[in-house]
Amino acid sequence: MTLAQAILSHKVGRPVRPGELVVVEVDHAMTIDSIVPTVIDRLEELGARPRHPERVSLVYDHVAPAANVNVAEAQKRGRAWARRTGVNFYEVGRGVCHQVLIEEGVARPGALIVGSDSHSTSYGGVGAFGTGMGATDIALAIASGKTWLRVPESVKVTFRGRPRPGVSAKDAALEMVGRLGADGATYMAVEIHLEGGAEEAFGRSERVTLANLAMEAGAKAGIVAPSGEILDLYEVPDWLRAGQDAVYARKLEIDLTALAPRLAAPFYVDNVHGLGDYAGAEVDFVFVGTCTNGRIEDLRAAAEVLRGRRVAPGTRMLVVPASSRVLQRAMEEGVLQTLIEAGATIGTPGCGPCMGRHMGVAASGERVVSTANRNFKGRMGAADAEVFLASPRTAALAAVLGRIPDEEEVAG
Amino acid sequence: MTLAQAILSHKVGRPVRPGELVVVEVDHAMTIDSIVPTVIDRLEELGARPRHPERVSLVYDHVAPAANVNVAEAQKRGRAWARRTGVNFYEVGRGVCHQVLIEEGVARPGALIVGSDSHSTSYGGVGAFGTGMGATDIALAIASGKTWLRVPESVKVTFRGRPRPGVSAKDAALEMVGRLGADGATYMAVEIHLEGGAEEAFGRSERVTLANLAMEAGAKAGIVAPSGEILDLYEVPDWLRAGQDAVYARKLEIDLTALAPRLAAPFYVDNVHGLGDYAGAEVDFVFVGTCTNGRIEDLRAAAEVLRGRRVAPGTRMLVVPASSRVLQRAMEEGVLQTLIEAGATIGTPGCGPCMGRHMGVAASGERVVSTANRNFKGRMGAADAEVFLASPRTAALAAVLGRIPDEEEVAG
Repeated sequence: MTLAQAILSHKVGRPVRPGELVVVEVDHAMTIDSIVPTVIDRLEELGARPRHPERVSLVYDHVAPAANVNVAEAQKRGRAWARRTGVNFYEVGRGVCHQVLIEEGVARPGALIVGSDSHSTSYGGVGAFGTGMGATDIALAIASGKTWLRVPESVKVTFRGRPRPGVSAKDAALEMVGRLGADGATYMAVEIHLEGGAEEAFGRSERVTLANLAMEAGAKAGIVAPSGEILDLYEVPDWLRAGQDAVYARKLEIDLTALAPRLAAPFYVDNVHGLGDYAGAEVDFVFVGTCTNGRIEDLRAAAEVLRGRRVAPGTRMLVVPASSRVLQRAMEEGVLQTLIEAGATIGTPGCGPCMGRHMGVAASGERVVSTANRNFKGRMGAADAEVFLASPRTAALAAVLGRIPDEEEVAG
Repeated sequence: MTLAQAILSHKVGRPVRPGELVVVEVDHAMTIDSIVPTVIDRLEELGARPRHPERVSLVYDHVAPAANVNVAEAQKRGRAWARRTGVNFYEVGRGVCHQVLIEEGVARPGALIVGSDSHSTSYGGVGAFGTGMGATDIALAIASGKTWLRVPESVKVTFRGRPRPGVSAKDAALEMVGRLGADGATYMAVEIHLEGGAEEAFGRSERVTLANLAMEAGAKAGIVAPSGEILDLYEVPDWLRAGQDAVYARKLEIDLTALAPRLAAPFYVDNVHGLGDYAGAEVDFVFVGTCTNGRIEDLRAAAEVLRGRRVAPGTRMLVVPASSRVLQRAMEEGVLQTLIEAGATIGTPGCGPCMGRHMGVAASGERVVSTANRNFKGRMGAADAEVFLASPRTAALAAVLGRIPDEEEVAG
């Protein structure tokens, strides 16, 4: 069995096969500030309340703090609903939904988590089956404690070896999306196996980055086979492993020892290039943050580049920690101080300007280097703003140099 | 002569009298992200460039980071103008314009500073003549290095004695505005004298709060007669003092030893009350920050209340440091850590949600306790959101209690 089959078989209580429709208990359902009003509408139409309020979380992260009255009204309604129903509620500033559920221990190996955010695949970083759904499906999951799924086929992606200096999980993830293509794993589970040193090189944070970006190949779930740090942090159930007999729709091997830093150029995540194709291009705005790369490991990587240096004149840099705990940790370690001394601006923990809805919207013609997960036309603001997706290290170098760095500079 | 006469006489090179129109050199002209496009338009219509670029500052603080594409485009245009002309430019996150010019040493005793923000009276905290002007006047000041003014009459406000525990400069300032009334000092200079212990009790930060709120009585300038900490921090010119012969349109004395904590209730700043009139009213949102009360002294006062306690369930708290230096200092001192541990959310240094344009807009029917300077209908978002203006200590107590505190609780 594949990892996806293992998790869904465990849920159903019998072996399931790809293509089957199954109804399964969900371990957790998550929704966010932008979506919660529609979820409440659907629940009200059904006359339903959360069946297991303790298995539901509402996280305010997408446009938080509220940037306009409409958002403020939506948030107000969600707060009242959370109070009334007793679901878990995380206020403005607690952090990005996925990061919060991981920190709170909700995401754990083998769990099934549905969320009203497409990057709910992130939970796969710890070996969970996480998947994004629309408001109606989330409302039904909240009302019934269950959801239906078509058991997905799986794509196996094996990362082998230790990456070279300056190369990170983000580069690996971009390479994976580039090779799979934006629709290369549509409704499939991308199952990621780390081998030959990769299992030690990539801890929880890096695994979340990989599972997070699996979504950009169209994946229903991205699941990293538990190993390395995950075995130290969690109890991993015996049944959570891919069998020798597992059948994959496709297999992909990526040699990390040969991987160079990557860049997703406008306007597609799978438009993946080496730095050489864009090195030297002037950069207006650098953004470090999001569920993809806003963790302490990412802020450390940026701070390492910025220590004792300054953000280039004519370039601005925004750092948004993925959660309040990341912010606290960054202060304890002096990482935040280093970033501020270098001229970076700090934003409230949450999604930041990832969706172009507040906190650093890009203007027309601006070039952005972002550690986030999407670079579609207009994603961060003006339709002709160019967003390049990169690792925190590459992004920090772009801030210091005021231009896209070359491979040697990133290798440092 | 009054302080206003002394400063303008020094500028003109001969004694001036209230009512006279004078043309004077400005020491500094300041503009901000929301206004700079209009300033540039006016300059372009004139075919003019800044006469003394080193005496001009552009500060991005009002809707920073940009909350939508329009703001982003305006900021982009301002950046290009700053680069082209060589004026001083302070990026998103550096802080609130007034705080930045004070930290940068631009505001100093006896200086004449014009700014395209109404609370430019703040510079009076250090003994400068600071005044707000519209975009056209600021553009002319930038183009010519000069401005015209009608020499204002003056109102003398004397604060006497040391305030009781829990009573701060904000309470004193609200009392002053309440007594003068919203139009009590229209186009006048509010000249503030600290006596009988007040000159030691109120340092630079507190003086800026007083001068800042003078605007809410309609003042053209609010000038605190230099004494106490100002004499340690600055060289104060000999000519900068009010003479025995000074003529005042009005005199007001406020006994700080008898002053209780104050609250400006919706929807007017001069609607000033004791806490007893509203104690117990539930509070949805607490905001600590702005040019009025976002300095380290204010954050310390909030942290003192929040240490070891938690923001009440059902209430949210946002703290926006007035500048990046305040943020850095708050980290060094552990103040920021205390605030975050208590559940407060931190925003990017700048004006925050003071104007309801981003970063924590209030929803309909919400009750807000804010340390800012205006509580007009709709100021922070929904038209029926109720904004109460208070000191950082009162605001922090409101956050912890989830309701407006009473006088005894603030006295502690």
